[in-house]
Amino acid sequence: MSGNEQMLAFEDMTVGRQFALGPRTVSAAEIVAFAAEFDPQPFHLDGDSQQAQFTGGLIASGWHICSLFMAMACEVFVLNSLSEGAPGVDEVRWMKPLRPGDTLSGVVTVGERRVSHSRPGRGFVYFDAVLNNQKGETIATMRYPAMVRLRDPDNASAETGA
Amino acid sequence: MSGNEQMLAFEDMTVGRQFALGPRTVSAAEIVAFAAEFDPQPFHLDGDSQQAQFTGGLIASGWHICSLFMAMACEVFVLNSLSEGAPGVDEVRWMKPLRPGDTLSGVVTVGERRVSHSRPGRGFVYFDAVLNNQKGETIATMRYPAMVRLRDPDNASAETGA
Repeated sequence: MSGNEQMLAFEDMTVGRQFALGPRTVSAAEIVAFAAEFDPQPFHLDGDSQQAQFTGGLIASGWHICSLFMAMACEVFVLNSLSEGAPGVDEVRWMKPLRPGDTLSGVVTVGERRVSHSRPGRGFVYFDAVLNNQKGETIATMRYPAMVRLRDPDNASAETGA
Repeated sequence: MSGNEQMLAFEDMTVGRQFALGPRTVSAAEIVAFAAEFDPQPFHLDGDSQQAQFTGGLIASGWHICSLFMAMACEVFVLNSLSEGAPGVDEVRWMKPLRPGDTLSGVVTVGERRVSHSRPGRGFVYFDAVLNNQKGETIATMRYPAMVRLRDPDNASAETGA
């Protein structure tokens, strides 16, 4: 018994299905710690820097926003799924800054999906993600595919209508 | 004197210009630390896990690869430029796993550029990035725009031929 029958499989990722992410509040210390390691541009490190004037103070690295998205998605559904990872990201848009004390929440929606022809027992699920702040402003959007195992590969064509 | 005359401006980001990144060797401890915070899927946390069997052991989170790219790019040219950040990423492809002990190096190439119509004194520079491992295999590719200040906004149209 692997417990896989309780995990979200490709068959469960029906088009239009949504997963709610967060809430998660982000501190200045977290923003600075990420930036110091990965993206030490002045407006990610020091809200009083000359370069932070045009950003209105300290703002999080865009890669930090993506990484926080991943953490929230893992918590809500990725770790409870038969996902085998993603081949990439089709688009990221950083629309508003993420600032110290902001609270992120979001929604991930299954956009479309297809059974893989080259990888037996797997399918690609295309996710559309939106992250908002506590004011309801959209901070970032993302579109990406993930490879997810089928629960019942023999019924794949019937399941997906392919 | 701001020292800006030594910084890379939009005018310096000529199409085809390249920046060499790295080398940078990545440890298992780094891979696990990033995953524990942002992407705790078993194959990013534990090379002996059942789920790491299909990945051939421990592999880095794709977001870790992107973040390492950013760290390398900051070191080589971003911190020495008049960049004001990026509105997003047009595409990321994770092509091969990044494994413990691998050494990343890469190249960022200016693909195209244009003066902004809505933001005076700024232009968009489109970068194509490639990250390779020590065997010369491509680990990831990325395409993204950055907003970069012009050194001499009055000569923008002559500079760019626009």
